[in-house]
Amino acid sequence: MVTQRGRARGQCCESSDLPLATLPSLFNPHERPKLVAPPRLVQSTDLVLERSMMFTLKVRSHQREELVEFTEQVAEKLKESGAQDGIVVLYVQHTTAGLTINENADPDVPRDMLHALRTLIPQHGMGFRHGEENSDAHIKASLTGPSVTVPFADGKLLLGRWQGIFLCEFDGGRERRVIMMIR
Amino acid sequence: MVTQRGRARGQCCESSDLPLATLPSLFNPHERPKLVAPPRLVQSTDLVLERSMMFTLKVRSHQREELVEFTEQVAEKLKESGAQDGIVVLYVQHTTAGLTINENADPDVPRDMLHALRTLIPQHGMGFRHGEENSDAHIKASLTGPSVTVPFADGKLLLGRWQGIFLCEFDGGRERRVIMMIR
Amino acid sequence: MVTQRGRARGQCCESSDLPLATLPSLFNPHERPKLVAPPRLVQSTDLVLERSMMFTLKVRSHQREELVEFTEQVAEKLKESGAQDGIVVLYVQHTTAGLTINENADPDVPRDMLHALRTLIPQHGMGFRHGEENSDAHIKASLTGPSVTVPFADGKLLLGRWQGIFLCEFDGGRERRVIMMIR
Repeated sequence: MVTQRGRARGQCCESSDLPLATLPSLFNPHERPKLVAPPRLVQSTDLVLERSMMFTLKVRSHQREELVEFTEQVAEKLKESGAQDGIVVLYVQHTTAGLTINENADPDVPRDMLHALRTLIPQHGMGFRHGEENSDAHIKASLTGPSVTVPFADGKLLLGRWQGIFLCEFDGGRERRVIMMIR
Repeated sequence: MVTQRGRARGQCCESSDLPLATLPSLFNPHERPKLVAPPRLVQSTDLVLERSMMFTLKVRSHQREELVEFTEQVAEKLKESGAQDGIVVLYVQHTTAGLTINENADPDVPRDMLHALRTLIPQHGMGFRHGEENSDAHIKASLTGPSVTVPFADGKLLLGRWQGIFLCEFDGGRERRVIMMIR
Repeated sequence: MVTQRGRARGQCCESSDLPLATLPSLFNPHERPKLVAPPRLVQSTDLVLERSMMFTLKVRSHQREELVEFTEQVAEKLKESGAQDGIVVLYVQHTTAGLTINENADPDVPRDMLHALRTLIPQHGMGFRHGEENSDAHIKASLTGPSVTVPFADGKLLLGRWQGIFLCEFDGGRERRVIMMIR
């Protein structure tokens, strides 16, 4: 994976003020020192830093309940990052929407999923007390979960053939923020 | 993010016994070598190691079913770690409790969530065979999930305005262990 | 954790073409340069690379609905990797199977879980439209989720005493692919 921001600021490659005597492993005292060009660690790291490892994605829903696929957005940002291997963490900053991964081919699959969840946890009639009439949405959001973690290799998401990444909207339509962190 | 423990022990910065000939990318053979002070990689890394990237949190529940918010504990440990950017993985080491993220403002939201889950999966009457009379708790734990992953930046959890981190207790009251790993 | 593949390919340790003037932190211009043996960063990193941080696991189910524990496979690959501290992300590349963590002792617990899910979301009778007669499996897969993240320390998964890692098969029997990424 591409060097992480915090470390690149100096934790790995920057010098410190400790005496040289604490550095025994870097050279052999019995070997005659050689003249060398300096390693260019910091510049390389700085170049890496120009590429971000964190993005904020916007995903738009148009109905109260809707599964909105945004796999393409994630794949594009991953490409933009230049990262090769690691994990992508997607995290929705809302309490009435979740994230999931499911079939991206037949639109009846997301339709059936929303239908089943609505059957099990209807908006009204379960004796909810929360005054905003969206307790069902909060519960469905926790059942699908606020985040998904997807591994990638060679710069490509390791999604299965039929897998797509979906925002699970349970109280829309709205624009939702999804944080994408690459690690 | 702060340098990870394993790597800091020497995988990135330690010398090895391979011949110098395998190091072509570090300097240009057509350029006259320059005299340089040695880079001080290892000391800097050692300083980073003083801060831990893993914590064990204790979260106490008082009822059989309860959502216990512990966002503050997580935020404090994150601050203590000194990590700036990355992900926090929270992981509950139990099979009858889960973790979730949901609204931290109106206590009716967690109440409604427990109420709905109890309506769908009651403790008794579904024909469970597990002898401890807590199959409902095991199932609810798997539905909410054993872990949550939350991104952070500039040392702050990237929670949405209304989001809090909750232990989902389904077979309490007890003290529960939650592993917090920063990456 | 062991050095990650992408970075090891050169992002941290490779030279770049920037002028030396941008490297002020590596040496003090007022200090007389010392002769040193070159640091041997790249070789050490190459050695680390011999151990993989990503694996593809195969998990076999034999019934339409089944919880198949594969904790041992994960623990073995983790050992093989040599990684000491971090997180294991397990990710199933299918849309009708999920992953979960639950009790590994009494087989009645997984049995009760499948029973409850089947009661709530039966294969037939909910008015599903998806033509493959496995909408129930897609929904259960999203409810359990496509991935689990487990922290580890000193090379050991930080599972609780009773916790096992399970493939949740909802449309088997089949061989399922699970990506294991160590970070």
